[in-house]
Amino acid sequence: MKKLQVCFSPELLHLYTLNDKVVVVTDILRATSCITTAFAHGAKAVIPVSELDECKALQQSGYICAAERNGKKVEGFELDNSPYSYMCPSLKNKSISITTTNGTRAIEKSKNAREILIGCYLNKKALAEYLKTIEHDLLIICAGWKGCFNLEDTLFAGALTQELDGFFYPDDDAGQAAIMLYKSASHDLVKTLENSSHYKRLKHLNIDRDIEFCLNNHDIYSNIPVMVNNSLINRKHIRI
Amino acid sequence: MKKLQVCFSPELLHLYTLNDKVVVVTDILRATSCITTAFAHGAKAVIPVSELDECKALQQSGYICAAERNGKKVEGFELDNSPYSYMCPSLKNKSISITTTNGTRAIEKSKNAREILIGCYLNKKALAEYLKTIEHDLLIICAGWKGCFNLEDTLFAGALTQELDGFFYPDDDAGQAAIMLYKSASHDLVKTLENSSHYKRLKHLNIDRDIEFCLNNHDIYSNIPVMVNNSLINRKHIRI
Repeated sequence: MKKLQVCFSPELLHLYTLNDKVVVVTDILRATSCITTAFAHGAKAVIPVSELDECKALQQSGYICAAERNGKKVEGFELDNSPYSYMCPSLKNKSISITTTNGTRAIEKSKNAREILIGCYLNKKALAEYLKTIEHDLLIICAGWKGCFNLEDTLFAGALTQELDGFFYPDDDAGQAAIMLYKSASHDLVKTLENSSHYKRLKHLNIDRDIEFCLNNHDIYSNIPVMVNNSLINRKHIRI
Repeated sequence: MKKLQVCFSPELLHLYTLNDKVVVVTDILRATSCITTAFAHGAKAVIPVSELDECKALQQSGYICAAERNGKKVEGFELDNSPYSYMCPSLKNKSISITTTNGTRAIEKSKNAREILIGCYLNKKALAEYLKTIEHDLLIICAGWKGCFNLEDTLFAGALTQELDGFFYPDDDAGQAAIMLYKSASHDLVKTLENSSHYKRLKHLNIDRDIEFCLNNHDIYSNIPVMVNNSLINRKHIRI
């Protein structure tokens, strides 16, 4: 069996070796859920960037741009960080540049990994099926909130770890804790997260519909976004 | 109610403000359990130091010295990192200098806090009773393992948070996760930790007796080690 580790925050990434591992980056509320939704609705590529300036530059060269900070859309960009915004037919075959508070920074910090994949509940099953076929160890990277541990990404790490049972074993305490947490929360993820810091942070933005979409729709999409030369593309479209 | 936060690793401490908080440092296996045991058996002071060299220097000026690295006693020092070593009558009224892989470094990194206390299952109740009387917010700092999250310190953070219910509320996801984990593990802490990385690391050292002592003896000591001018002393001995 292969090893699986879970990193609870991009601030802890320096403690892990990346170049021998496949990584799955997750930012459940909402960056990786949005990216997966975009590919499910025909997007051609998603370019994650850390800074607003980089996103602005790509916008000026013709990309459709999405920018979120502290849960809110940044003025002057086309898209926000709601998965519903990525279901729009006008995004079909388009390239989108995206920058968010946590998710895109976690992706940026993962760049030395062997392969970078994007995960969320929406594509959990498809992702797990692919991961079962790889020969390398796995690191699940939780985007967290501004460097701190968060519950929603950790619960997804637990869900994915559980899905990979028999193929990967949790090799660190973070992986074991993620499973324990998921087991005690999986009967009602929305309710468990109602007291979480990020839920409270997002609540006044009236995005309950987004939260429910991201947490309750498991395995509805079959795409696996993968990083190739600074762009995320749909893994189905590349040859192994 | 006052706020309570949990920091899962000293590597995340830069994300927290310390100067307005009381902190509890915990390194259940075994540094903070040893320190608490030492005071319960009459030690006068414990000086935690990060480096072996500092410990050596204090040894040369007459301190009894304890040094552990990677679970093992370092050659040339009097004491190891077993709580049983601190039950010895010859330590009564003595000052001990201690350096360990994780615990003493976590204490060193907490130095800007308003007050630094030492916690473990052994003194949990006494510690909680004191914390209920303070006017400041609380940060529980898990020593972790070489910067990474560990399960045993997190479970203690959950136990202490639960003990403080009604006086402090968990203000971050880490505090909520710690409670969830403790609830699902408290029926048998030793069994839960049998798969943890640190348990496996320590197992070949034949210290099952230490592990059981540290995990299963709740509330047997009433001392609260507190940092005053680079030394830990028993809080009972200082005037508030």
